[in-house]
Amino acid sequence: MKQFISVTDVADINALIKKAMVCKAEPLKYQQLGAGKRIGLLFLNPSLRTRLSTQVAARNLGMEAIVFNVDKEGWALEFEEGAIMSGNTVEHIKDAGPVLGQYFDILCIRTFPSLKNREDDYSEMFIHQFIKYAGVPVISLESATLHPLQSLTDLLTISEQLGIKPLNRKPKIVLTWAPHIKPLPQCVANSFAEWVNAWGEADFVITHPQDYELSEQFTKGATITQDQDAALAGADFVYVKNWSTYTDYGKVYENDPAWMLTEEKMKNTNQAKVMHCLPVRRNVELSDEILDGSHSLVTRQAGNRVWAAQAVLHEILTSK
Amino acid sequence: MKQFISVTDVADINALIKKAMVCKAEPLKYQQLGAGKRIGLLFLNPSLRTRLSTQVAARNLGMEAIVFNVDKEGWALEFEEGAIMSGNTVEHIKDAGPVLGQYFDILCIRTFPSLKNREDDYSEMFIHQFIKYAGVPVISLESATLHPLQSLTDLLTISEQLGIKPLNRKPKIVLTWAPHIKPLPQCVANSFAEWVNAWGEADFVITHPQDYELSEQFTKGATITQDQDAALAGADFVYVKNWSTYTDYGKVYENDPAWMLTEEKMKNTNQAKVMHCLPVRRNVELSDEILDGSHSLVTRQAGNRVWAAQAVLHEILTSK
Amino acid sequence: MKQFISVTDVADINALIKKAMVCKAEPLKYQQLGAGKRIGLLFLNPSLRTRLSTQVAARNLGMEAIVFNVDKEGWALEFEEGAIMSGNTVEHIKDAGPVLGQYFDILCIRTFPSLKNREDDYSEMFIHQFIKYAGVPVISLESATLHPLQSLTDLLTISEQLGIKPLNRKPKIVLTWAPHIKPLPQCVANSFAEWVNAWGEADFVITHPQDYELSEQFTKGATITQDQDAALAGADFVYVKNWSTYTDYGKVYENDPAWMLTEEKMKNTNQAKVMHCLPVRRNVELSDEILDGSHSLVTRQAGNRVWAAQAVLHEILTSK
Repeated sequence: MKQFISVTDVADINALIKKAMVCKAEPLKYQQLGAGKRIGLLFLNPSLRTRLSTQVAARNLGMEAIVFNVDKEGWALEFEEGAIMSGNTVEHIKDAGPVLGQYFDILCIRTFPSLKNREDDYSEMFIHQFIKYAGVPVISLESATLHPLQSLTDLLTISEQLGIKPLNRKPKIVLTWAPHIKPLPQCVANSFAEWVNAWGEADFVITHPQDYELSEQFTKGATITQDQDAALAGADFVYVKNWSTYTDYGKVYENDPAWMLTEEKMKNTNQAKVMHCLPVRRNVELSDEILDGSHSLVTRQAGNRVWAAQAVLHEILTSK
Repeated sequence: MKQFISVTDVADINALIKKAMVCKAEPLKYQQLGAGKRIGLLFLNPSLRTRLSTQVAARNLGMEAIVFNVDKEGWALEFEEGAIMSGNTVEHIKDAGPVLGQYFDILCIRTFPSLKNREDDYSEMFIHQFIKYAGVPVISLESATLHPLQSLTDLLTISEQLGIKPLNRKPKIVLTWAPHIKPLPQCVANSFAEWVNAWGEADFVITHPQDYELSEQFTKGATITQDQDAALAGADFVYVKNWSTYTDYGKVYENDPAWMLTEEKMKNTNQAKVMHCLPVRRNVELSDEILDGSHSLVTRQAGNRVWAAQAVLHEILTSK
Repeated sequence: MKQFISVTDVADINALIKKAMVCKAEPLKYQQLGAGKRIGLLFLNPSLRTRLSTQVAARNLGMEAIVFNVDKEGWALEFEEGAIMSGNTVEHIKDAGPVLGQYFDILCIRTFPSLKNREDDYSEMFIHQFIKYAGVPVISLESATLHPLQSLTDLLTISEQLGIKPLNRKPKIVLTWAPHIKPLPQCVANSFAEWVNAWGEADFVITHPQDYELSEQFTKGATITQDQDAALAGADFVYVKNWSTYTDYGKVYENDPAWMLTEEKMKNTNQAKVMHCLPVRRNVELSDEILDGSHSLVTRQAGNRVWAAQAVLHEILTSK
């Protein structure tokens, strides 16, 4: 694996999940693998879980991890080819990329969408330019449209549950839109849809209010409905997530508490496990009742971020 | 020791001071103790000495220390139970705590008081919620009302001096209020009072202007007077510190240069050593003359922060 | 070497360049040298290359490097002797310096000029006060008037080129002013001039528009002209850099695109290699055409920052 920005970079999803499970069972099993290697974690946007779990994963593999908050500790980068840099950007990725590629063996980058111009965001120019110029393997710590480390964690968490309590059928996985107070990226939802579809081992349903359709590029293969109750019926896993509109881009039309998942709605499921990528706005996106209940997997999901990151790093280190 | 947020967490103060002295004499003596352990240093507020000395202490014990400036690199945390998170806070400690507890073996946190609502600050909700949800040992890097790593350093520094030049009586220790330009927390003063009282090996006097009474919860046992001259008479150690009002909470009534310690006032002492936790506003809280003089212990105190932190980490690592 | 803030701290420039080349050839050759040593990297201003390359260099020597963004993670420092600190500065370097000197074996600091008061900036009070009070060796990561790690890198890069393609005469090195959109320090230009003059192995020409004279303190020995074409004629190396005015301090009089280096102007040179310290404002300071062309050394220069830093650290570690 030479880069990790989408599920399309993964040759075998189940093999990667298995590797993550091996890392979880024995965190320091591969602690010699990354000895003498250096990984750079570049943030153009804030992070808690992603940053810390990736640092921990790198250290478990014996690598040195250096965090650099590009926006706060450095300056604004330019990504546009041919730009006349007389504005706010101080350094072009054409210059910063190859320099960073000389200092690090692997580079990780987080870069959020603007949510202002869909075409720009969905072109993923930032991360593609970064890959083009870095000259070393690049891992996405969440880009404009995708969050693959989260999705790998999600499938790892689902696989663990299916291992504990096997079903004699495909699990029903529901991705349900949740209310929020401000426009959020579509990354986590896009990425989860892309991974579950590529995995192919689930009965996958996406439910959201009118006008919140995601890009078909990622959802194709899933059943899509605006009837949340019907979607939840018999669900084994319910993934709760807000996202802003895709079609009329980056808006929040409806912030309807009726879409918040409740215990009442959960009765309709097959004692479904509830998932969320965190951070979660309690009692806006999801109730305390559900988050603190026995069906919540959110803490376990977040803990699994370490092993997902470690599996990806392992894959990159062994395929170099 | 399962947590370190107050002197009440310490079974034997002198034993802890002795351990700090051992660490100082031989910094790398226990460098295998923390091997493979990871410590998270979380800052909701700025820090210089506390952060760096704790990093150094952790490394001396072979631990990996990761600093995370929650406010700058992450986002605002919610600490209130049952909050409907439709405001500025992005993640609840109920979610962040257990996640961080999965990534780290020990967690350290700094969280300042608001100085707006005394009841809230003195409830120490932030650090108590953090402890409740982290699931691993927690060390205070200064909380709303206390700064125990500073106080341990202070007693270590006093003990060192008493070792160099023993007295055939209890030392007289004076905590004196000093002027400042803005309202500061009562933490360092509260904590110093709490520790000296618990230690019980000093003649302890607190002096401050009218209306600057500290909470009895911490000062009980000390002699309290508004007569600075009387307080200083025969003092062996003078701890200088500003704090804002406790009763009519968080105010600065008097910023009277007359309370600034001078060489003239020091003549009344028993050639007292002068202490301050730093940072100090020179020529406002304390004069250059005293800070640069031979009786100042402030640099030594700050250096001792490493050994105090190392003793506490040692205690936690060995009692797990 | 006890400090590294100017070329005057270097006993033998070519020996230091050679040491950097040795480090580049075998990065981990001296990985035991710094074992157990700790280096503090203090930033009062932002940095990308300088910070990361120095971290990498320190690690290559087995040292632990701790980064501290003084302005963002700490608070404003006071540098003026005798200051009555009733303003914005929270801690005096007289207190912070000795404390940091207790925590670290070597301290590195970046502190930019104000560009408001030439006398103040050129007094280099900040870094001199820091050295005075730190009590351990200090390395400049760029100060008010100089950037010695950059200049060492520059001479290393030039020496490498001369090694690849030797000349049977002194190389002609031209430092040419370039347009920019805002006033920049004179540091890189001053420092490059100081180092090339001290090195003494070049035919050195500085060219800039009227009113952009640099301080003679650094340029003395160089040929200075306002005729860019004449300067470039037969040049082997062209160092491109903007700086603000020195005489009428900190101004940008002329931001004349005519001074931007073009392929057309380069025809007049001896197929000169083009250098820049980065970050560069593309198509303002330097055209894409030149930066992306085969004559550009900028990426190589930036990569060499690691080896320059490593040579300086090696020098300090072995002369302690």
